[in-house]
Amino acid sequence: MKKFTLIALVAASSMLASQAFAQFQKPKDAEEYRQGALFVMGQHFGRMGAMVNGKIPFDAKALADNAEVVAYMSALPWAGFTGGAEGGKAKPEIWKEQAKFKEYSDKLQAETAKLLVAAKTGNLETAKAAFGATAGTCKTCHDAYKAK
Amino acid sequence: MKKFTLIALVAASSMLASQAFAQFQKPKDAEEYRQGALFVMGQHFGRMGAMVNGKIPFDAKALADNAEVVAYMSALPWAGFTGGAEGGKAKPEIWKEQAKFKEYSDKLQAETAKLLVAAKTGNLETAKAAFGATAGTCKTCHDAYKAK
Repeated sequence: MKKFTLIALVAASSMLASQAFAQFQKPKDAEEYRQGALFVMGQHFGRMGAMVNGKIPFDAKALADNAEVVAYMSALPWAGFTGGAEGGKAKPEIWKEQAKFKEYSDKLQAETAKLLVAAKTGNLETAKAAFGATAGTCKTCHDAYKAK
Repeated sequence: MKKFTLIALVAASSMLASQAFAQFQKPKDAEEYRQGALFVMGQHFGRMGAMVNGKIPFDAKALADNAEVVAYMSALPWAGFTGGAEGGKAKPEIWKEQAKFKEYSDKLQAETAKLLVAAKTGNLETAKAAFGATAGTCKTCHDAYKAK
């Protein structure tokens, strides 16, 4: 893919996230939605981790493909943390600290966009640095808002 | 988004699906992955259905945004139906009839790409027709391969 397409793709993904197009029939749907989106993202992110940490062989194309899914998926889960859908592994603080939670989710999306650009360079060290920064945003948010 | 970007996005999504970049640590991960991806897709598809069937007001932008997520997500679940990950709501026939299952999943991706183009026209009747065709591919596959 050309760079302009990648940027358009990430921009489209972020636009989607900012829109209130997500309505759930029932709270459990919102919970399953956010868990599903986070799980899908996590699987692709985990594959990137295995690669940048040398547990599986470096494959520039696979790394970039996984980064693309991670960047896209990073826009989706947040709609599932809607009012009335408290529960699961989500700490109730999420609903009390919405500005902070949004700051964290926005930060993740910014980092995954950078990670995609880094992965596309085909340079393992560049990708590794961006992976570390992204993983840090996951951890910060999980530490604050994900139940053990 | 410009049309070329949409096409590139859908093409990118299909390319991803055709690649063996999906490896799971354990069978349950594959099951949770496919269920998560299908659930996310289903939620956005369901919102489109509510709109084309007049249950919620027509909003061309929301319809197109949901179509975009559906088209993207339609490439992902299939990697989760990997060897050794039988179970859940997936009938064992999937693993015995892989050519037919792939034909169905390819067909879904083709239909969701058309649905995205149709939704982008902003014409409700055009979108409704494409929605119906897509829903038909869901049903065909569910009838054959999803446990009741």
